[in-house]
Amino acid sequence: MLNFYAGPTALPWPVIERMREDIADFHGTRMGIMEISHRAPEIEGLLADTAARVRRLLGLTADWEVLFLQGGGSLQFSMIPLNFSAPGEPVDYVDTGYWARRSIAEPQRMGRDVAVVASTAASSYRRVPPVSSIRPRPAARYLHLVTNNTVEGTQFRELPRTGVPLIADMSSDLMTDAFDASACDMAYAHAQKNIGIAGVTIVIVRRSMLDAIAAEARELPAILDYRTHALHHSNYHTPPTFAIYVTWLMLGWIEEEFGGLAVLGERNRRKAATLYDFLDATSFYRCLVEQDSRSVTNVTFALPSAELHRQFLEDADKAGLIGLAGHRSAGGCRASLFNGVTQEMVDRLVDFMGAFEYRNRSTACSRLASATDITGTSSPTTRPRAARSASPRTT
Amino acid sequence: MLNFYAGPTALPWPVIERMREDIADFHGTRMGIMEISHRAPEIEGLLADTAARVRRLLGLTADWEVLFLQGGGSLQFSMIPLNFSAPGEPVDYVDTGYWARRSIAEPQRMGRDVAVVASTAASSYRRVPPVSSIRPRPAARYLHLVTNNTVEGTQFRELPRTGVPLIADMSSDLMTDAFDASACDMAYAHAQKNIGIAGVTIVIVRRSMLDAIAAEARELPAILDYRTHALHHSNYHTPPTFAIYVTWLMLGWIEEEFGGLAVLGERNRRKAATLYDFLDATSFYRCLVEQDSRSVTNVTFALPSAELHRQFLEDADKAGLIGLAGHRSAGGCRASLFNGVTQEMVDRLVDFMGAFEYRNRSTACSRLASATDITGTSSPTTRPRAARSASPRTT
Repeated sequence: MLNFYAGPTALPWPVIERMREDIADFHGTRMGIMEISHRAPEIEGLLADTAARVRRLLGLTADWEVLFLQGGGSLQFSMIPLNFSAPGEPVDYVDTGYWARRSIAEPQRMGRDVAVVASTAASSYRRVPPVSSIRPRPAARYLHLVTNNTVEGTQFRELPRTGVPLIADMSSDLMTDAFDASACDMAYAHAQKNIGIAGVTIVIVRRSMLDAIAAEARELPAILDYRTHALHHSNYHTPPTFAIYVTWLMLGWIEEEFGGLAVLGERNRRKAATLYDFLDATSFYRCLVEQDSRSVTNVTFALPSAELHRQFLEDADKAGLIGLAGHRSAGGCRASLFNGVTQEMVDRLVDFMGAFEYRNRSTACSRLASATDITGTSSPTTRPRAARSASPRTT
Repeated sequence: MLNFYAGPTALPWPVIERMREDIADFHGTRMGIMEISHRAPEIEGLLADTAARVRRLLGLTADWEVLFLQGGGSLQFSMIPLNFSAPGEPVDYVDTGYWARRSIAEPQRMGRDVAVVASTAASSYRRVPPVSSIRPRPAARYLHLVTNNTVEGTQFRELPRTGVPLIADMSSDLMTDAFDASACDMAYAHAQKNIGIAGVTIVIVRRSMLDAIAAEARELPAILDYRTHALHHSNYHTPPTFAIYVTWLMLGWIEEEFGGLAVLGERNRRKAATLYDFLDATSFYRCLVEQDSRSVTNVTFALPSAELHRQFLEDADKAGLIGLAGHRSAGGCRASLFNGVTQEMVDRLVDFMGAFEYRNRSTACSRLASATDITGTSSPTTRPRAARSASPRTT
C-alpha cells in the first residue's frame, strides 16, 4: 500500500519491524515496551534518550527544554495563551489558513487582545506572507505562526526575526529538514506526521519563556503549565510511553539512516521536486500554490473536473495509492510526503498520475471548454480555502 | 517476567500477539494500525466499535456519552471543575489519599468553593469512609471521589447515593468488576491499568451533565470542553488511535474470555483473596488496610523491617517478580493485580512470599524484639501515607 495520508501516516519499515520485537520483549526485560512502569529505569532512560535525540537533531543548547506532552497541536493552541499571556494582553498571530485560524480562535475565546499581523486570506491562502511583512506589535507577548500548512500546501522558507518571541507550530514539518533554533523561542509538533504516531506532541521551549511565566506569578492548572512538565522531565503524570517510544525509534532511524536533518531535508526536497516538476509540466493537473510558498511535505493539486477528481481517487484507491483526497475544507487532492514516504513511492505516484492523465486527457479537453470548476471539488461553493471554525481537526 | 507494576503494567498475551499482526497489516488494509488516518473508515469504525464495547460491558443506556480523551486522570482533575462549575461555586470531594488529594488541589487552585465532605486522613487512609457518612452540600455542583486508591490499597465496595451528581475517578478499577451505572453521573479511567496502555482515558458521562454546561453558557477552551468531544465522537482532533486500538483489543478480550464484567470480577476477587488470605495467615507480613476497605486491584503490605523490605524487593527482582515496591509516598510493598495479572501469577507471588518468609523468619523474630519501624521503609518519617502535593503522578 502506498500511504499518502496527511497523518497518522506511513512509518518506515525498519521502525515497524523493531516495534514488533519490542512489543513482546523490550531490551531483554521480558516485558513488552507498553507494559513497563513509567517510573522504571527503562522508561526513565527512554524519556531521557528521546530528549537527547531531539536535542542532537535540532541542535538545541542547554537553554532549551524538551517536553513530551499529550493533547496534540490543539491543546497547544490553548496552552500557549494560557501560559504566556493574561486576559487583555496583546498576542499576535499570522493567518495562513485552516490551522492558523484554529490557533487564533483559542486566545480570542480567552479574551486576549489578539492581532492578526499578517494574513493571506485575500489570496485564498495560496501563499504565505513575505517574512518582511510580518510586523508584530512590540508589546505582544509572542508571535505565533504555522510553518507548514497541511491543508493548503504552503510553507515558510524562513522565519521572521522581529524581536517578539516567536512560537512556531511545526506539526507537519519539524524534523523534516535542517532547523535553526536561533530563529524561534518555542516550537511544537505532534508526532503522527513525521516523527511517530498520534498521542504525543514534542514541545521545545526556551527556559527564558518559562521564567517569564514564573515572573508573572501566573496561576495555571498544574497539567497545563509547561513548568510542571519541565520540572518533572515529562514524567509528572503517566506519559504516553509507547508513543514516546515510537518517536524514539523514528529519531533513531533519522540519525542512523541520514546522519541528521540536513541529508533528510535533501531527500524530502527531492521527493517534493519530483511531484512539483511533474505538476508544472502538465496542464491536466494544476498546483494552485505559488512557487515560493510550496510545501515540501504537503503537495496540493486539482483535477480538471469534479468527475475526473472522483475518478482519480477511485483509480488511485484501486492501484493501492491511499490518502490522496484533499482536506474537506479545501477540496482538491493532496499528497502528503512525510518522512515515512520514500522516493520510490513518489515515483510510483507520478507514474500513476501520468498514466491517469494519458487515459483521461481527451475527456478533460472536451470538458475544459465548458468547465468553470477546476478544483475538482463537487461545487464551486466549497472552493474557498478558508477555515471553517466549527469543523473538527483533520490534519 | 511476573509484572505487578501499578501501571503501565502487564497486558494479556493474546492482546500482545494480535497487536504484533495488526502493526504490520490491520484488517487486510496492508497498512499498520498506527499508520491509518483518523478520518479513514477503518479508524472511524474502530472508534465506534470501542465505544460500543464500553457501552455493552458497562451496561450504558443511550443517555450516556462515551469519550476517549488524552491527558490521563490528571487532566480530568482540571476538566471536571472547569466544565461543571464556575469560580466561587460549591464542589464537594471525598479525601481517601494521594490521588484524591491531587484531585482536590485543582478546583482549589481555580478558586472553587471546595468542601472535603469526608476524609480518612485521621486514620492514615487505612480505610475509605462509610458511604453513609458522605453527605455533600445540597447545592454542590458535583461530588467527586476515587473509587480505588492505588497508593493506599483501599477501595469502595459501593457508591454513595446523595442526590448530588457523582463523579467517580475509576482509573484503577473501571472494567475490573460489575458496574452499576445508576450509581453515578460520570466516571473516568486512564487505560494503562486495566484496559490498555498509557495515552488514552475513557470518560463516560451522562448527557444531562453536558446539557448543564450548555445551560450555564460556560465558555471553555474547545479541547477542554467535554461537549466538543461528544459532538465529534472523540474525533475532534487526532485521537490517540493506537492507544484506543489497544483498549478495543482489551475490551474484546474481556468479552471473549469472560463474557462480561461479572465473571471477570469473580476472577479478580479470587486473585485478591489468594493474596489477602496469605497475608492474614502470617504475622511476618502485615496488611495495614482495614478488612472492609481492602482493594481488589492493589494489595499493600509491609515487611518486618527496612532491611527485610530491601531484601524482599531484591530477591523478588532476582526471581522475576517486578513492580512490588510501594508508592514512594506510602513506602512498604504493593502488588497490583490488574486485569493483565493471572491467577497463576498471584499463586507464584504467594509461593515466593512464603519461601521468603521461611528463609527470613528467624531474622525477623530477633529484629522484631527491638524494631520500631514495621513498614519496611527506611525511616519512620516517611511513614504517613498522606499525599505530597508537590510530587509527580506515579500510577
